[in-house]
Amino acid sequence: MTISLNSPLDMHLHLRDQEMLKVVAPLSAEIFAGAVIMPNLVPPITTIEVLESYRDRIVESIGDSKFAPWMTLFFKSDYDREFLESAKEHIKAIKLYPAGITTNSEGGVSGIDPKSLAQTLGAMSDLGIPLLVHGESNGFVMDREKEFGAVYAQLAEAFPDLKIVMEHITTKESAKLLERYENLYATITLHHLLITLDDVAGGMLQPHLFCKPIAKRPEDREALLRLALEAHPKVMFGSDSAPHPQSAKESYGCAAGVFTAPIALQALTGLFEAHNALDHIQAFVSDNAQSIYGVKPPQKIVTLEKKPFEVPDNYGEVVPMFAADVLEWSIQSID
Amino acid sequence: MTISLNSPLDMHLHLRDQEMLKVVAPLSAEIFAGAVIMPNLVPPITTIEVLESYRDRIVESIGDSKFAPWMTLFFKSDYDREFLESAKEHIKAIKLYPAGITTNSEGGVSGIDPKSLAQTLGAMSDLGIPLLVHGESNGFVMDREKEFGAVYAQLAEAFPDLKIVMEHITTKESAKLLERYENLYATITLHHLLITLDDVAGGMLQPHLFCKPIAKRPEDREALLRLALEAHPKVMFGSDSAPHPQSAKESYGCAAGVFTAPIALQALTGLFEAHNALDHIQAFVSDNAQSIYGVKPPQKIVTLEKKPFEVPDNYGEVVPMFAADVLEWSIQSID
Repeated sequence: MTISLNSPLDMHLHLRDQEMLKVVAPLSAEIFAGAVIMPNLVPPITTIEVLESYRDRIVESIGDSKFAPWMTLFFKSDYDREFLESAKEHIKAIKLYPAGITTNSEGGVSGIDPKSLAQTLGAMSDLGIPLLVHGESNGFVMDREKEFGAVYAQLAEAFPDLKIVMEHITTKESAKLLERYENLYATITLHHLLITLDDVAGGMLQPHLFCKPIAKRPEDREALLRLALEAHPKVMFGSDSAPHPQSAKESYGCAAGVFTAPIALQALTGLFEAHNALDHIQAFVSDNAQSIYGVKPPQKIVTLEKKPFEVPDNYGEVVPMFAADVLEWSIQSID
Repeated sequence: MTISLNSPLDMHLHLRDQEMLKVVAPLSAEIFAGAVIMPNLVPPITTIEVLESYRDRIVESIGDSKFAPWMTLFFKSDYDREFLESAKEHIKAIKLYPAGITTNSEGGVSGIDPKSLAQTLGAMSDLGIPLLVHGESNGFVMDREKEFGAVYAQLAEAFPDLKIVMEHITTKESAKLLERYENLYATITLHHLLITLDDVAGGMLQPHLFCKPIAKRPEDREALLRLALEAHPKVMFGSDSAPHPQSAKESYGCAAGVFTAPIALQALTGLFEAHNALDHIQAFVSDNAQSIYGVKPPQKIVTLEKKPFEVPDNYGEVVPMFAADVLEWSIQSID
C-alpha cells in the first residue's frame, strides 16, 4: 500500500542557524517541497540584508534539494510602508510574537492592540503580506491561547483584508475562531494532533514533548483533529518543528519545542489512515497552503509505503518525536 | 518579631529508607514534633514486622530528637479483622493508593469501590483507624482529582463512621467535598498553597516543582489557600515532602515530588503573615491534626523570627523548594 503526496509543505518551521541549521535544514528539504521559515533567530530577522544572508545559508545547507525556503520577517510595529514595499518580494509573511512568550521572542510586541500596530498592519494589508501570529497571552499556561482569542478578533476586525494565520493552534476555541472571521487561518502541528498535557506531565515529565503553546486537553486535541482530518480549507500543516540539543531538553530548565520535521509525513500518513481520511491528507499538507498563501512550490512527489519506519534515536544532537519508536509508514521514494 | 509554634506536625511525610532516610529524617525530626509516615516503600509496608523494623530505622536515624513517627500501613483489600486489631496499636492510619498513580504505588488498588474494599474498610471503621487516600483517577492529568470526588463520596457514604483523609488536595472541588461529608478531612501541602501549573510548565519546565497530584489552576490554589488561612477545622498541614536525588529530578523522566520538610515552617509563616493570618497558623500546623487524629505529640516549642533564611542549594543529594532563595522567616530556637 502506498500513497503519493504532491509537493508537501511545512508552513511553520524553525531551522535555527550555524551547526544546527546544517543538521536540520537538509532533513526538511529532502521530504518537503517548501516551508515557511520562522525569523526568531538571535537577534531576530528585521532587515532584508539579514534575511537574504540567512536564506543563502539555508540554500547552501540543503545542497541541490528541490525546496523553497519561504522567508519571514520578525514583526515590528514601526516598519514603514516603503520598507515593506521593498521587502515584499523577499518574504512570504511577517511573524508577530508577543514579547517573551517563547524561544527568542524577547524582542516581540508588548501589549498588542490594533491601533498601536496600525502602521505596519495597515501597510501589510494593502500590500497583501500575511500576518503570522504566536497567539498567547501572558496568563495561566492552559488559558493563554484562549485569552488571546480576543486579540485575534480585534485584529481580524480592524484589518479585514489582512490574512492572519493563527500559528500552531492548540484549543477548541481557536478552531471556532476560524469560522467567525473570514480572514483568520491556522496552522496545526503534528504533535498537537497527537498529544495532550497528559503526555507531557501526566506520568513522568517528558521534556521532548514540552512545547509552546503547551499541549492542552483531550477535547482540544479532538477539535484540532477534526479540522485536520477534514482538511478544513483554512487550515494548513505547519510542524513548528523546533530543534534543541538533547542536552538542553534533558536537563534542568528544559527548552520548549518538539522536533518532528523528519518524521512528520510518516506520522501524519499513519494518523490520517487510522481515521480513514487519507483522501484529505494532500489538501492538509499542501493544497490548502498553496491556496491560502498563493504560492507555487517546486514539483516533488513523495511516495510513502506502509512499511515499518524505525525512527532514529537522534539526528545529530537532536532527539525527534517518536525516537527509537516504529511508525507504520515510511518514505519509499522522492521524485 | 517572633512567633512560637507549639508542637508543629507534618501529617503527610515521605522519609524513604536507607541513605535517604538518614539524610531527611533528622531534618523533619528537628523542627516537627510528629509526622504521619507514608508506607510506599519498595516493597510497601503491609506487615507489623516490616513496619516496626522501619520505625526502628527512623528512630535510629533521628537521634534524640523529640519526634513521634506515626506509622501507617499500605492499604490492602484483604486485611482481616484480627490482623487490624493487632495492628491498631502500631499504626495511626492506613494509606490507600490507586494502582500506579504515584511513586511506588504499583501494588495499590485497581478499581476502587466500597463493596470490594468492605472487609478492610468495615474493620477500620469499627476499630477507629483512619483511611488516608491518594485521590486521583487515571484520567486526564488536570481532571484526576476532580474525577476521584465520586469515589470519595461513595466511601464517605458507605462508611459514615470511618475517618477519611483526602491527602494533599489540589482542587476547589475537593475543598467543597469537605463541607458535604462529615467524615471527610484533608491535608494540604505547602507547595499547593504557593504554585500552579504555571510554575511547573508555564516558563521552562521546573522539575523540582513537578509532583503528584500536579499543581492545578489559580482558582484551585485560591480555594486551598482559603481553607489553610482560616485553619478550617477539617484541614491539616501535610507537607507530602518527597525527596528524590537531584540526578533523578534534573534528568530525562523526572520523578514526581517536592522536597519541603526543612523549609516548610519558615515558608508557611511567611505565607500566613502575608495574609494577616498568623493567628491561625497554630491550628493549621498542629491543633487541627491533634483533634482529628486524637493524638498527643511530644511537647516542642519552635520559635520563628522575621530574619532572612538563606535556603541551602541542597540537603545531601536533595534539592529543596526555594533552593538558594531567601525566605523572610527563619527558625530562632527549638525547645
